[in-house]
Amino acid sequence: MSVSPVLALTTGEPAGIGPELAAMLAVAPVAGSRVVAVGDPELLAERAARLGLALEIVELAQHEAVPAAAPGRLLVWPVALRAPARPGVLNTANADYVLETLDVAIAACRDGHAAGMVTAPLHKGVILDAGHAGFRGHTEYLRDACGVEEVVMMLATDSALHALRPGWRGPAALRVALATTHLPLREVADAITGESLTRVLRILDIDLKRWYGLTAPRIAVCGLNPHAGEGGHLGREELEVIEPVLAALRAEGLRLDGPLPADTLFTPRHLEGVDAVLAMYHDQGLPVLKYAGFGSAANITLGLPFPRTSVDHGTALDLAGSGRADPGSLRVAVALAAQMASRSIIQ
Amino acid sequence: MSVSPVLALTTGEPAGIGPELAAMLAVAPVAGSRVVAVGDPELLAERAARLGLALEIVELAQHEAVPAAAPGRLLVWPVALRAPARPGVLNTANADYVLETLDVAIAACRDGHAAGMVTAPLHKGVILDAGHAGFRGHTEYLRDACGVEEVVMMLATDSALHALRPGWRGPAALRVALATTHLPLREVADAITGESLTRVLRILDIDLKRWYGLTAPRIAVCGLNPHAGEGGHLGREELEVIEPVLAALRAEGLRLDGPLPADTLFTPRHLEGVDAVLAMYHDQGLPVLKYAGFGSAANITLGLPFPRTSVDHGTALDLAGSGRADPGSLRVAVALAAQMASRSIIQ
Repeated sequence: MSVSPVLALTTGEPAGIGPELAAMLAVAPVAGSRVVAVGDPELLAERAARLGLALEIVELAQHEAVPAAAPGRLLVWPVALRAPARPGVLNTANADYVLETLDVAIAACRDGHAAGMVTAPLHKGVILDAGHAGFRGHTEYLRDACGVEEVVMMLATDSALHALRPGWRGPAALRVALATTHLPLREVADAITGESLTRVLRILDIDLKRWYGLTAPRIAVCGLNPHAGEGGHLGREELEVIEPVLAALRAEGLRLDGPLPADTLFTPRHLEGVDAVLAMYHDQGLPVLKYAGFGSAANITLGLPFPRTSVDHGTALDLAGSGRADPGSLRVAVALAAQMASRSIIQ
Repeated sequence: MSVSPVLALTTGEPAGIGPELAAMLAVAPVAGSRVVAVGDPELLAERAARLGLALEIVELAQHEAVPAAAPGRLLVWPVALRAPARPGVLNTANADYVLETLDVAIAACRDGHAAGMVTAPLHKGVILDAGHAGFRGHTEYLRDACGVEEVVMMLATDSALHALRPGWRGPAALRVALATTHLPLREVADAITGESLTRVLRILDIDLKRWYGLTAPRIAVCGLNPHAGEGGHLGREELEVIEPVLAALRAEGLRLDGPLPADTLFTPRHLEGVDAVLAMYHDQGLPVLKYAGFGSAANITLGLPFPRTSVDHGTALDLAGSGRADPGSLRVAVALAAQMASRSIIQ
């Protein structure tokens, strides 16, 4: 029997649903993972009690061995809250707490105590308000902390999902990476250059090999314009930017389809045999991914030295403490990180 | 028992799959419809024979009564080919034939012989090559022929589809209308003005009432930018264009949600109770719609004096004559047109 990989789970904004999702997860651990929550043990105990969850909370030091997962036991690498946290009430005093949970998890991954990390949502606004003016989000923070130049955002559904769709012949899991992320729509076309697209495709190809055990991953690339530009009639970026990049990378051995019209790409006929789709921008790729996943998709950061996944939702301050938050996305995020980390152990 | 509405089915490009799809449909008619194919009877007979389909072909004049649908009987309003048509081989000599099938169907709808029309795919390039330089496609041809100023493109899935998804709590059918259609991505932001968005939303609201029997349709409107602009941080069109339009139309009584982030809109939580989604552009709304429909979505033109639906695929010249074409989208297009036409008879 192989040993399940250790995953550091940052519990995120203490006023949000992150702490209670960690408690829900500990009641019914995801098979094939050993999750260690990074956060305040008293906060986690309080949220579990509020939800009526009977949990044994076990504090560990980072150098201590991590036992196997057991239902009802929550393992914690402790970080102390700076101020008491009430569900739904943001407090800038705890911004440093949130950032410290990230630092602890990153250190655990880099020092080999964890094989990957999973992040519950943080609240960007409260971290900015606390004076961390340069903070742009989890992904950029991890990129800078790991000293890499570029990361790629990918979302994926649970691999079991499509097996449930009658008549579905496409791949079991849907994976969608983005060539650009959080930009106003009118800036997208100019942001996609030959250089940026080449970097993104290289990272995607390498990490599909590294974390998914694929020897020759096949990537389907969307066009930028409707109908992938229809031969230049609906835009020229396919002819002038995308196609030359794909041709050059194919010559290096990458397996790339496209540029393909985004509206027909996400059908079984085009997805069959495809390991990941590269969308050119946020709303070209994510509506279909989140529709497919409905509550059980997760976010993956590629290009880091370790696997990192996160939930695909926010802090849900209005739900915090109510017990009505859905742990579905967190369970998928843990399962995907565990799969990625296991593959990297095998190879 | 109510009488099924008569639908004129234009059989489209004679070198494509349209004629054989019409033959396949006649073998197993869609319940609740009386379809009359518009095309060359000998062509339809030849394609049926090529596929081994035993069909009785019955030519009708437009003023003749249309009998009930019967499996194996193909009713035809005849239009003569200008030149012999071979599967997969385009011929500019038949461009006028294709346009005449449209004219016949439009006349049938306007004269009351048909309650709506369904279009099989035509090939825009061959019509342009034949000298019809201004031809932009079915939708614009119909718009001009009917003398209306603006039409709205909407795609819909079969209403039975979501009932098959385990755990799905959203609406049974997904309907996505577009604020802009076939534009290069970089032109989209400027093409959406307060005036254009107002016109599109008015047409959508009116036709959801008229053809779907909804007294107060609820429309969910996407933002233009990712996360619907995130309060102005990712673009200002939501604040400056979309929100003022929605506010003004709500004051007139329209039920409008939004502007909403497109990536989370297509989940059961946000779709529940929504009759149609308005996407701001082609690849924001259609990938998810076609993924949801996978081969059984259809295209609807709103703003015309009669219901018009069409398949969501092209002429598929490579498949023509092979019998491997999938009539799924045509069956959905017929079912949706029949539903729309029935509602309009009832009211």
